Amino acid sequence: MASSAVDTEVNQDRKALIIEKAAELFASRGIAATTVRAIGDAAGILSGSLYHYFGSKNAIVDEILAGFLDDLTARYDAVLKESTNAIAQVRGLVHASLDCMAAHPHAAEIYQNDANYLLTAPRYEYVGKGAASVRRSWLRVLEAGVANGTFRNDVPTWLMYHLLRDAIWLTVRWFEPSSRYSYAELADDCCNIFLKGFVAPGVDVDAGAGAGEGAGAPPPPKSNR
Amino acid sequence: MASSAVDTEVNQDRKALIIEKAAELFASRGIAATTVRAIGDAAGILSGSLYHYFGSKNAIVDEILAGFLDDLTARYDAVLKESTNAIAQVRGLVHASLDCMAAHPHAAEIYQNDANYLLTAPRYEYVGKGAASVRRSWLRVLEAGVANGTFRNDVPTWLMYHLLRDAIWLTVRWFEPSSRYSYAELADDCCNIFLKGFVAPGVDVDAGAGAGEGAGAPPPPKSNR
Repeated sequence: MASSAVDTEVNQDRKALIIEKAAELFASRGIAATTVRAIGDAAGILSGSLYHYFGSKNAIVDEILAGFLDDLTARYDAVLKESTNAIAQVRGLVHASLDCMAAHPHAAEIYQNDANYLLTAPRYEYVGKGAASVRRSWLRVLEAGVANGTFRNDVPTWLMYHLLRDAIWLTVRWFEPSSRYSYAELADDCCNIFLKGFVAPGVDVDAGAGAGEGAGAPPPPKSNR
Repeated sequence: MASSAVDTEVNQDRKALIIEKAAELFASRGIAATTVRAIGDAAGILSGSLYHYFGSKNAIVDEILAGFLDDLTARYDAVLKESTNAIAQVRGLVHASLDCMAAHPHAAEIYQNDANYLLTAPRYEYVGKGAASVRRSWLRVLEAGVANGTFRNDVPTWLMYHLLRDAIWLTVRWFEPSSRYSYAELADDCCNIFLKGFVAPGVDVDAGAGAGEGAGAPPPPKSNR
């Protein structure tokens, strides 16, 4: 029926607005410090009505984070299927991470800022599972790269993973893309720094990106800017 | 008088206990979500009595963060005085950061997790000033290194700074030093990765650490572990 279709549309718009405003608040203040009332105020909805759309504050958090983590793990899976070249895979995972962050900036910030809370609260078990899947993808790529002589073997792979992960994800706190320097350029430059730090002596970072099964690898780095 | 000396000592012990318990709570839950009451409970002191030692929750935060930032900036100043070799300076700043983090683990975690809040609230202007001083030290070292051909010039220095800063500081969230892998080894390995990513073509990272005015530079990297 027409009126029910309109109702549904209004409901969907409201729901999207609540999610958007809540994500902004969670990202800037933290989940614990954000009340349902503050979310209602930001969305222009009484907190009583807000419960019509979401059973609890946690349900809003779920909607924001589950969408982000599903997108991220799907992007990672695609990268690992696309190539078996370790250098191309690192480039692919860095680009996938930053593309996903660009698509879900608030979710990425919440994930970083509230990591302690999200990874220890039993309520958010799926966040821990998503984080573990991301970690497995990275370690598989790095360990295979060490095993076949692409990456250095004098630094632990878990350290490479942690440094890269934190450097990449924390860009959400300070990076503002512009027409002069985009997310894709940020991803290329991150790769240019980390890959040089990761490769074994004698391995050429740029050759690796263009050669072999480097499908999906970005173009070689640009000159100064 | 003896009784007053004892009182003062008891007061100091209490104050230290309050700071310690508050730092634990701020680090794990965030500043905003930690109440004065929760701090009192953790320290075994009624919140009313707690106000005898500190005028407000913010005053406790100040005590924790100001000590940390003063220590950090003093360590950075010492590194910059000790050497003018860009590679030795990067090694020195990384070691200084991780040594300072090891000395103030909760403060470092609060500084990271509540960065948004601390860097925007006018109340915490000194945190912004400390962060700006740290940033200036890093950029001075990196820019001088690019200018004299030690570091590559195809990646912006602000990006090198951000990636290194976030990777190093976020170790506070996951790194547990052990007798098999200490903070000093973590610092050495971080340097080994980032310096290789930073140097200009043909520059030898290890030679730089030992040569010139490399005073205070750590020993060369160890083999596999």
